[in-house]
Parts: sequence; C-alpha cells; structure tokens
Amino acid sequence: MADSKTRPALDGDPLAVETLLQDVFGIVVDEAIRKGTSVSEKVCEWKEPEELKQLLDLELQSQGESQERILERCRAVIHYSVKTGHPRFFNQLFSGLDPHALAGRIITESLNTSQYTYEIAPVFVLMEEEVLKKLRALVGWSSGDGVFCPGGSISNMYAMNLARYQRYPDCKQRGLRALPPLALFTSKECHYSISKGAAFLGLGTDSVRMVKADERGKMIPEDLERQISLAEAEGSVPFLVSATSGTTVLGAFDPLDAVADVCQRHGLWLHVDAAWGGSVLLSRTHRHLLDGIQRADSVAWNPHKLLATGLQCSALLLQDTSDLLKRCHGSQASYLFQQDKFYDVALDTGDKVVQCGRRVDCLKLWLMWKAQGGQGLEQRIDQAFALTRYLVEEIKKREGFELVMEEFVNVCFWFVPPSLRGKEKSPDYSERLSRVAPALKERMVKEGSMMIGYQPHGTRANFFRVVVANPTLAQVDLDFLLDELERLGQDL
Amino acid sequence: MADSKTRPALDGDPLAVETLLQDVFGIVVDEAIRKGTSVSEKVCEWKEPEELKQLLDLELQSQGESQERILERCRAVIHYSVKTGHPRFFNQLFSGLDPHALAGRIITESLNTSQYTYEIAPVFVLMEEEVLKKLRALVGWSSGDGVFCPGGSISNMYAMNLARYQRYPDCKQRGLRALPPLALFTSKECHYSISKGAAFLGLGTDSVRMVKADERGKMIPEDLERQISLAEAEGSVPFLVSATSGTTVLGAFDPLDAVADVCQRHGLWLHVDAAWGGSVLLSRTHRHLLDGIQRADSVAWNPHKLLATGLQCSALLLQDTSDLLKRCHGSQASYLFQQDKFYDVALDTGDKVVQCGRRVDCLKLWLMWKAQGGQGLEQRIDQAFALTRYLVEEIKKREGFELVMEEFVNVCFWFVPPSLRGKEKSPDYSERLSRVAPALKERMVKEGSMMIGYQPHGTRANFFRVVVANPTLAQVDLDFLLDELERLGQDL
Repeated sequence: MADSKTRPALDGDPLAVETLLQDVFGIVVDEAIRKGTSVSEKVCEWKEPEELKQLLDLELQSQGESQERILERCRAVIHYSVKTGHPRFFNQLFSGLDPHALAGRIITESLNTSQYTYEIAPVFVLMEEEVLKKLRALVGWSSGDGVFCPGGSISNMYAMNLARYQRYPDCKQRGLRALPPLALFTSKECHYSISKGAAFLGLGTDSVRMVKADERGKMIPEDLERQISLAEAEGSVPFLVSATSGTTVLGAFDPLDAVADVCQRHGLWLHVDAAWGGSVLLSRTHRHLLDGIQRADSVAWNPHKLLATGLQCSALLLQDTSDLLKRCHGSQASYLFQQDKFYDVALDTGDKVVQCGRRVDCLKLWLMWKAQGGQGLEQRIDQAFALTRYLVEEIKKREGFELVMEEFVNVCFWFVPPSLRGKEKSPDYSERLSRVAPALKERMVKEGSMMIGYQPHGTRANFFRVVVANPTLAQVDLDFLLDELERLGQDL
Repeated sequence: MADSKTRPALDGDPLAVETLLQDVFGIVVDEAIRKGTSVSEKVCEWKEPEELKQLLDLELQSQGESQERILERCRAVIHYSVKTGHPRFFNQLFSGLDPHALAGRIITESLNTSQYTYEIAPVFVLMEEEVLKKLRALVGWSSGDGVFCPGGSISNMYAMNLARYQRYPDCKQRGLRALPPLALFTSKECHYSISKGAAFLGLGTDSVRMVKADERGKMIPEDLERQISLAEAEGSVPFLVSATSGTTVLGAFDPLDAVADVCQRHGLWLHVDAAWGGSVLLSRTHRHLLDGIQRADSVAWNPHKLLATGLQCSALLLQDTSDLLKRCHGSQASYLFQQDKFYDVALDTGDKVVQCGRRVDCLKLWLMWKAQGGQGLEQRIDQAFALTRYLVEEIKKREGFELVMEEFVNVCFWFVPPSLRGKEKSPDYSERLSRVAPALKERMVKEGSMMIGYQPHGTRANFFRVVVANPTLAQVDLDFLLDELERLGQDL
C-alpha cells in the first residue's frame, strides 16, 4: 500500500494531471473535432466486430499502462467511433457538434456534481430553473414546474406516472391493484417509449390504446374519441393522452388543439411528446405546427436532438404549480434533504425525481443559448426547414428517387435503382425494393461516406429517412447525399 | 436567414471552433482542475441564492453574446460551483477527480453518440460488454448480462421489474392488475430508491416490507424470514429481496450468504444494491464484506462513487443468460433495430433498456482501469480503508469527538462542543447536540474550508458522516478535518 502520508502518484501530481489532460484534449481537437467534422474525412471507419475487438484490445488487466499507451488508446477510440458531428451523419434525430454546447459539457464533466441539492450544485440548481422557465415560456406558460430527465423515454414515463398520481394519489402507497384498470391513448405513430413506459410502470402494454393516424402520420381526433368510448365500454378508466409533436419516422405533428378539445371533454391529462419537434417552438415561422401545446399538462422536449446540445438534454415541462412532481416522487430522505439546513430547502430539487444522483444537463443548453441567442437558434431551425425544402425539390427532380413523405425536417424516400425502374407493377417489386436500402446502407457505411437510417413502415417497403438536423449543413451536403446514393446504387 | 449555400459562422469555422474550445479548456484546467483540487483554495464559494442569481445573470435572451463574455461566463460557472474533486469535499459518496476518467468523459462528450446500436456506437457497444464482463467476474460470475443505467436508483428499479417479469411474464402486457399482490423485502437501512422504485413501478410503497437491522445497520436474516411469513399470511406473494452492500449513512454490509439462504428457501430473486460498496470487490483484503454476492440474481454497482469515474457510471449486473433484459424491456422498434442489417443485430443492445437514447458510461471506467490497472484501483480501495482507520483512531484520541459508528469508509461521529461536554445527562442534551452539526455545516460552507454531510438517524441526534473516498486524500486532510471542526465549533 502507498504511504498514506503522501499523496499517490498522478492523482495528486497537478502537473502530470494537467499534462495528461492537455494531451488528451489535443487528440480530441485533432481527431474528434477537426477530422470528425470535416467532409474530407470519413463519417465512420467500419470494422467487423471481431476485428474491432482485436484492434481495441479491450480486456482489463491487473497492470496499469504507460501514459503513451493510454494516449494511443484515446486516439483509437475516437478513430473507430462514428462521427455524429459530421455533416454526412444523417442517421439519427441528432447530428452536429455545437462548440458552445460541447464547452458546457466539458465544464460539466470537470465539475462532476449532482443536481439534487443547492448545497453541492448552487449554480446548476438556479440555472436549471432558469432554463426550464425559458422552455416553459416558449410552450406558452408563465408558471409551472419541470426537470431534466435522462432521455425522452423517461420524460414520457414521468408524465404517465404524474397523470395517474394526480388522479389516484393512493397509487403511490397502495399500488395499481387499488385502482380501476387504466387506459392511455396515443397514435400508432408514437414513439415506442410509450409502450415501454406502460410496461415498466406496471400498467401493461394492453393499457395503451393505439389511435389511428391519417396518411401523413397525424393522430385522428375522431378516432381518439372512438377509442376513449371503447375503453370506457370495456370497463377501463381513461386517464392520459400522449400526443406527438414530431413523430420519429415521418416527422408528423398531431393536431394538438383538436386533441386538447377531446382531453378537455373527458377530463384527461394531455401529455405532448415533443422530444423531437419541441425545438420548433423557437421559430416564429414554424411554431404553428405545435399550436395548442399550451393546453397540455406536460411536455417532453429534447434539446439534444434538433438543438444539438449533446446527449442528454431532455426536459419534462409541467403546467402544474401544486408541487405535483415532489408529491408524486418525493420520499424525504433525511440524509440528503435535511430540513434544518441554513438555506431555503425548497432549492433542493432532488426529491422531484425518481433518480438520486442526477447529472447536470442544463449548462450545455444555457451556454449555447447565451452564445447564439434565441435568434441564432431560431435561425438554425429555419435553416433546417429551408434545407429540407431544398432536398425535397432535388429529390423530385431526380430520376430514381421517390418521395414517401416530407414533414418537418424528416425526408422519407425510396431510392429506386436502375434495375427496378419502371417495374412498379411486377409482383416482387416491393420485396426487391425492400432490399435496396439495407444494401445501400452497407455500402455507405463500409465506405464511410455517409450514414442514413432506413426502416419499413406499415405496408411500405424499406425507405430512407434523412434527418436535416446538423447546424453546419449546406446544400452541397444534400447534393452529395443524392449523388452518393446514385453512385452506390447504380448497379443494384 | 443565412445563405444556405455557405456554412453558418462558427458552426462551420473550424479554426474559431478550435480556438473557443482551447480557451475553454484552459479555463477548465486553471479553475476546475488546478484550483479545484488545491487545498489552498476553497472547496466552495458560498453565495445566497438571490446574490448568486445576480452574479450569474442567468436569463436567456434573444441576442447572442461575444466570445469574451462567454469565456467570462465559463469562469463564473466554475468559480461559484462546488469543487467535488477537492480533497476537503467529504459531503457525498463521491469525491475526487480521476484524470483518466475525466479524459474518458471528455472524449465521450466530443463523440456524442448513443449506446443503442453497433451501427453508431461500435467501440462502445463492445467496450460496455467488456467492462460489464469484468465487473461480473469480480462478482463471481463467468457469464451473465447487464447494462449501464442512469444511476443506482434506476438500476434498482430494473432489478424489481426483471424479478416480477421473470415470475409473471404476463405483467408486461397485462399489468399488475393481472397479478396477485406482490411483496418485496429490504432492510430499514436501505437506500430510499427502493421505495421510490416500488411507487414508480406501480407496486406501491406498501409492497416494500422493511426488515429490521442490527445495531450496526445490517439486515437481520431471521427478521427477513419473519417478514416473509407475515407477508404470505397477509395474502401477498414475496418475489424479491434487496440486500444492501454499503448502506448510505452507516456503510453497513448486509450478510449476503445468510440472506441468500433465505431467498433460496423461498425461491425469491436476490438483488444486491452494492451501488456504494460494490467497488470493494476489487480489494482482495476487504472483499469478504460481500461474501455471498455471487448468489445474487442481480447487482447494482456504481463505480462513479468509490472509484471516482464521474457521474454517472452505474452498472446493473445479472446472472441471467436467458436474455431476460431484452425480453422484459424490448419492444422491437423497427426504425432502430432493423432485423435486415448487414451485421449481427445481437450487438444492438438498445432494446435491453427502457431508455431509447442512452449515454456512453463505459469509456471513463475503461480508460481509468487501463491506466491504473486492477492493482492500482485495489490500492485505492485499500488506502481508503486504511485512512478510515486512521481517522477513527484520531477521533477516539480527541476530546469532544464521539464515534457513532465506523463501517467501510463511512465514519459517523458527533462533535460535542465545549459547552455540551459532560452534559450528557441533561434533558435537552440531545436537542442541543442536534443543532451542532447544522451550525457547523453552515460555518464550514460559508468559509469554504470543507464540506461534510450530516443527518439524524433513528433516535440519534444529527451527526456527521465523513466519507473517505477521494483517491488523493492523505492523513493531513483528515487531521485538517478534525482541527477545523474544533476551530469552527469552539464557541458553540
């Protein structure tokens, strides 16, 4: 054992610590930031899993390694990782690398605190409240509550738990067995976290009633009415509707005002899953897509998606001013939330959540907002919409591209390779078309030239979904995307 | 709107991005790392909330700010934040700043990906599996499953949900109403997340049966037996016991072998909440404290606590090899977990969890382990135990200090100020003693000299809980701690 009278090596050697971190930061700037966002570099460096395992030498040993070796490892980790900040990363609902948000994340990591008490997170307790207030104001609320959650799925679960607690406070102590059978409603285009949440919360996936969506993916309020009546007729008690602002695949926005009317008529909690579409509230031009959101009881909004703050930054916003969050989730642990503190213990927000330690997720958004201003962020949203229009028009112009749908900044389309063009009537067309996207995906990933997601949808064969989210995108990147699909698919 | 043919400013200007990040990193090194871990600097810079709000100027505006102003803001955020890496931060179950772990966190942030698919997280999918394998091996399992969760509370919830699903797979679809009333068991010294979890999962807090603990805070297996019989007699179905390895306040380890015997006899799922104590498994000298843990069905272990990897790094480990995680939580979303991918889709681990996007929590631990080796980490654990012994002996030597309990690296004690010494028999002694810790806490925080947590416990008046976790601690810091309490409390 080390002599406990002296500080252990490196841990306590400030110069060595600084040198290491400077070296690592240099590697991060070179590899992850400079190369990672450069269109002359690959978006990914594909390796088969077995080969990658060998290259990374992952096994953890008894002996420590030299500083030099550690730096090589840092380089390798970055080299073989996908560059989600790259302008040709169109694969998920997040893309891009905002430098101020990254700065906020690095500061967050260096301070390594938990969001539960003012005592150990004074700056972040106040900052979280300010950021949530701003997000609520954009929803249209002058008061309310909220919290950052580890992702939109958990935000959605919070909404479900709050809605059932508000109606049946007994549930917290006595559980669901003390309650009548509950029913909640969402459209078939909703995110899968609604079903996962219903299972996790003990409601069961059967409690989720899927409401029909129209051909553009928007919930049909008349069918919501029908489903509510049906559930009631079957003896269930409807308690929540989860509408979606920005569905995952199609990018559809449910008609919130019409849905809110139904909720009001039946006394149901209206939750809006705006994890993807919430950021549109920043755009005066496009925020009409969320008209009616101010009538919601709760809103889930992930700035880590379209605002590119970095994972995770997921706000659950509430209209409630009755301390519902704390009543529903609180347990008054006396070792953490002492009531005899020397400051106002209302600042200790940790008992609002079901987590104990909770990461600081507000700084990255706050710092980026301070740097860009609301106007700068609005410009990004408007730019994303404009580029989406550009992409759609280009798709329409080109042979071999067929649009499935365009909503928001989701562009869904088929690439029809030369061998399939004009064969729409052949009986195996759909089956053959379905194989195109996976084949192209393999090619683009193995070349590292770009990444686009694809999926089947209802009866539709696999199609690509391009997400226009990266704030550094330009028309040239979208031209590249289409050219590259043509190049990769010419022999299919 | 910006001309969409050119890339927007800063976002697309690599040199400006690098300069900003270099500047911020310089501030981080100066303020958070150099000053933040120096004993000649304060551990915190206390400000009243209203004053701090003014100092930080938190409000978010329409206009963006100059780069210079942003850098000032970064400095202020760090300056007024608590330095949890400081050797005099004894306040929580985490303390210290491991440079390799921080390097891993900075790389993680710069890569900004989600852990759900091999496609977009090839390095981290493989790395997470390797790290989990190593942690399982330390538990004593040569196979199994697992996942990193956003904190120990959610790990504990996972265990509860898996246990009920394993017994009643119907629950996922049909919900708790289809099940008999369930009961789970934990000691009264357990973490509050067990009750929070029971409420969240729809079981209700009443389903948690509190088992007695002995005077050192360890679960009494005989009382567990009694509670199980009682629950059965009341018509409930016992399904899970959550034992604790390292309780939050006292640092107690439940007798796992004896508890496992009871579980075996009754066919109950044994979960071990080793969020705090799990890291002791790395020490050949002290791992006997967790003897029997290999008999558990699930283990929650937070390396972000004693191993100082940084928040959050919270593993849920399972002995199961039947893909229980995926069966219990999966929903087969076709837009993310396509089955026609060109690689083995078993690598897409995202459907094991109830989150969708999930942060990368493995790299910080992996990189630190590579640098320190298992031996280096073991040495830290042994050092923490040795320093704890030192602190306890010093407490015993000094007048005015009275030990409540010493277990693990938790040292619980009263500081009895001069005016209360020898007054143990007076009727208001306990009440007056209770006011000492809060008063001292206020003084230490306002001076910024150190931070220690306190709490009441059962019938015991408020006492301090010192956590000896920071890897850079030396005897001199513990001497300082006791001297400082004497200095701050001399007139109380």
